[in-house]
Amino acid sequence: MGTASALPTTCRYPSAQVLDVRGRLFLLDCGEAAQINLRRQKISFLKISDICISHIHGDHCFGLFGLLSTMAMLGRTGCLNIYGPRALGPILDFFKSTFGEGLRYEIHHVVTTMKEPQVVFSTKNIELLSFPLNHRIECCGYLIREKVPQLNVRKEAIERYGLGVAEIASIKRGEEVLRGGLPINDEVAYQPYVPRSYAYCSDTAPFPELASWVQGVSLLYHEATFPVEMADLARTTFHSTTADAARCALEARAERLLIGHYSSRFPDVSAFQEEARTIFPETYLTHEGDIYEVPLVKME
Amino acid sequence: MGTASALPTTCRYPSAQVLDVRGRLFLLDCGEAAQINLRRQKISFLKISDICISHIHGDHCFGLFGLLSTMAMLGRTGCLNIYGPRALGPILDFFKSTFGEGLRYEIHHVVTTMKEPQVVFSTKNIELLSFPLNHRIECCGYLIREKVPQLNVRKEAIERYGLGVAEIASIKRGEEVLRGGLPINDEVAYQPYVPRSYAYCSDTAPFPELASWVQGVSLLYHEATFPVEMADLARTTFHSTTADAARCALEARAERLLIGHYSSRFPDVSAFQEEARTIFPETYLTHEGDIYEVPLVKME
Repeated sequence: MGTASALPTTCRYPSAQVLDVRGRLFLLDCGEAAQINLRRQKISFLKISDICISHIHGDHCFGLFGLLSTMAMLGRTGCLNIYGPRALGPILDFFKSTFGEGLRYEIHHVVTTMKEPQVVFSTKNIELLSFPLNHRIECCGYLIREKVPQLNVRKEAIERYGLGVAEIASIKRGEEVLRGGLPINDEVAYQPYVPRSYAYCSDTAPFPELASWVQGVSLLYHEATFPVEMADLARTTFHSTTADAARCALEARAERLLIGHYSSRFPDVSAFQEEARTIFPETYLTHEGDIYEVPLVKME
Repeated sequence: MGTASALPTTCRYPSAQVLDVRGRLFLLDCGEAAQINLRRQKISFLKISDICISHIHGDHCFGLFGLLSTMAMLGRTGCLNIYGPRALGPILDFFKSTFGEGLRYEIHHVVTTMKEPQVVFSTKNIELLSFPLNHRIECCGYLIREKVPQLNVRKEAIERYGLGVAEIASIKRGEEVLRGGLPINDEVAYQPYVPRSYAYCSDTAPFPELASWVQGVSLLYHEATFPVEMADLARTTFHSTTADAARCALEARAERLLIGHYSSRFPDVSAFQEEARTIFPETYLTHEGDIYEVPLVKME
């Protein structure tokens, strides 16, 4: 919902993205006017259960107060998890003490540590990790991934091998089941789908560990504030160029790369895509209002 | 730039208006995304010398942090006056302490008292007054008016009466000048233009003093959150109906009335205008992006 960097333009809003994971909505950063764009995209505010804030520069969090207020006015009662660096705590406290009248839901701040990837949220099927980025102030990225699903057993194999309930359960758990002294697991069991993942890397200078932390990600969002020719400015401001983003995607063996957080100097960013594609062909530009799907690949 | 009430809609932004007084720009309230709409309207951020905040409900001030940050990034050094209730102080302090790194301009908070109209800013030609409104929390309206201009002396009269420099100055100051024992002031002096004024009355239930405080205003903005049929809700929420706004304009002998701050229940507000016009025919709806002019009426 927002592809601008520090200065919004007439057609670019500050950073904000919504990730729909099986109907559970994660808001990734919350730049100014996020609530207005959520409404434009017809996204239900109340379905947002989790907000992930990368850092407390204004273009990544100035939309929080408005969104949290509107959630209160719409009658929200369900707890809202807000992940983010320690410095986010006083901001949420200030919001609650100054604008929190009528707030009938709990705001739960989960502090992201700044050492290495950590699981900050987990359900049976998905998990959310935060990891440190390399910016001027404490800043973290997020990785949301489906867990490896339980194995399925092929229906025809159940009959063929006369598998009972206990044996089926064993196979689903990955335990060896034998016939004629040989394991039949590979033949009868299959992974129902390939787990998908999304990584959000906002505002970072490149650093060696990042690619390993998002290794094999299905869809990588990586900021590309500047074109290659402005690499020096990228370094001094702790940002990335198109090439930095593309190299990260390449090293991480990502399936696809999205770039954004464009410097306001560039109304037209088509050259950004071209630059990145010379290194990582599966690069795509983000635009306000666009929707990107990570298709589910079923195995049977 | 914003005609929404508490909940923004897909096409209405929270409250924000810009008043251009002879090239000096006053921002009246600063709802979320005000900086984005300023940019869309091609209004220079640096020409804004004064921001008038009516009260600290989010829909009137959540755009401040973004705007103040952007002004800093654009290199502002000139002092910025922000008028508003006492409760605005801690918000500005929090901004400065948490997001104020790189701020190279002074933010001067002028506290508006909540008793009666007071001049909060004055130059040779204009003055800005604040006055209390009747809302759930401390809230004030603003009146910006041109001062009564110095009198001009008709050129042909100077020759006819042989007026010297001292006499001309006397006439301009309004002092009597005689010829044949009779004052000639009415014949030789004239007011060069009719002073114009604009009043901003955001978020208020009607109350008796208001019309007298904005008496004779050229252009009155008065909130009209609800239609007449919802007068009960207007009372309990300390807001106004279309009829309340129109009656205020009528009693104040305003030249024209603008209404806004529409409840999100009403995507179409054409009926609001019709209702108000039954009481005050010179009523006009506000819309995002519209420009309203108060023409200068010259006397000679």
